[in-house]
Amino acid sequence: MNLAHDVLYGRQAVVESLRAGRRTAHRLMLLDGLSPAPLIQEIEHLARALGLRTDRLSRSGLTGVVGHDQHQGVALETSLYPYVDTSAILALAGDRGEVPLLLLLDLLQDVHNLGSLMRTAEAVGVHGVIIQERRAAGITPATVNTSSGAAEHLLIAQVTNLPQEMAQLKEAGVWMAGLEDVPGATDYTDRDLTVPLGLVVGSEAEGLRRLVRARCDWLMHMPMCGKINSLNAAIAGSVALYEVLRQRRRTH
Amino acid sequence: MNLAHDVLYGRQAVVESLRAGRRTAHRLMLLDGLSPAPLIQEIEHLARALGLRTDRLSRSGLTGVVGHDQHQGVALETSLYPYVDTSAILALAGDRGEVPLLLLLDLLQDVHNLGSLMRTAEAVGVHGVIIQERRAAGITPATVNTSSGAAEHLLIAQVTNLPQEMAQLKEAGVWMAGLEDVPGATDYTDRDLTVPLGLVVGSEAEGLRRLVRARCDWLMHMPMCGKINSLNAAIAGSVALYEVLRQRRRTH
Repeated sequence: MNLAHDVLYGRQAVVESLRAGRRTAHRLMLLDGLSPAPLIQEIEHLARALGLRTDRLSRSGLTGVVGHDQHQGVALETSLYPYVDTSAILALAGDRGEVPLLLLLDLLQDVHNLGSLMRTAEAVGVHGVIIQERRAAGITPATVNTSSGAAEHLLIAQVTNLPQEMAQLKEAGVWMAGLEDVPGATDYTDRDLTVPLGLVVGSEAEGLRRLVRARCDWLMHMPMCGKINSLNAAIAGSVALYEVLRQRRRTH
Repeated sequence: MNLAHDVLYGRQAVVESLRAGRRTAHRLMLLDGLSPAPLIQEIEHLARALGLRTDRLSRSGLTGVVGHDQHQGVALETSLYPYVDTSAILALAGDRGEVPLLLLLDLLQDVHNLGSLMRTAEAVGVHGVIIQERRAAGITPATVNTSSGAAEHLLIAQVTNLPQEMAQLKEAGVWMAGLEDVPGATDYTDRDLTVPLGLVVGSEAEGLRRLVRARCDWLMHMPMCGKINSLNAAIAGSVALYEVLRQRRRTH
């Protein structure tokens, strides 16, 4: 048994991990007496095809292994998250013959925001996500869960120095667009987002760090007409990602 | 003392409620020994201007009144949420000389989704939100909190029969656009969203109810290019709301 492992949980997270097939699955755990459901049937089918050991656990047993009761009766012990290098992300864009689109996350720590933004990133077809190694949330089982399993399909690089990674991406011809509502920022719809692009999203509380902001080729904001004038970070990032997709689909 | 009251909690929620001034505030409660912060100063300033009773409570005392410890040291006892009628929402659009934009929520129950979608709705300047009275989440202190106080500024109508309300709005010249990824749905960017519009968003699990879908003038979906092909409901709704804003700003 590998000591360094993850215990993924939740039906969508587990089925997407098995569908993606990028981790080594060690053991499927199902709640004893679980009611039949299409997603459970597919999980069991995929597990059988892999010759995977399947254990039936009591509710308290499964909750004990997962660490809480948000498992929906399903858990999967797997190898750790298969991070990639940034070069693999650019290679994927090349393989697909597409203009690179990357999402860069600076200190985005809230697991719900991280998960739902990854879900959008997967939906719009980003080639990869780059996250800061320290301080920011990594790809934990909770992130896989809140992303509805999208993290299992995405190429994700974890880097120790995001500004340095941004400099290298700029050398490779990728423009860095920071999402921040500061004076001088452009309306996000007024920018040409069909170029090779890295969208940089910061944390809701702190925004982008100074060195990250300094590496951005431009800053963008979303127009706001209300009294509060702030958006959830995952929502702002998602709106910007869909604007990229809108512009790119119109040029084809 | 009014027995039917709300206890709002969280710094942003409380300050926005006091700024909006639409509820009757009964009592401000602050954690004893709270560190100074700009938002706390503003809350105390607004409370003084109202002649509001302010109590200093111990951590356990405040947690007891709020019911949990997510209060950030601040709670406000107020009258219940000031729901409006749909006519007030249309009147606001008329007063502003703007083309009506409404958000209609069918069975959206997750309090985080509800809150962050309300926050976007406030940011893009919708004239109001219509929510179903039964089954769906109402405007609870938790919703005010997850909306960062946006709910305090929004006009929100709670109706018992959403399909009937949709029929009346259609009579008043408002087009109903349902957000649902089903065969026959149009790309949301291919629709003219500059007309008087009600954007109808359903729950993530169940989508729109049959009778609600039947009242929609058209259904829209967001294009998806990934493996998972589903979006968080609050994110899908927010992307659509920002597309409305984008189109409307371009026509001015």
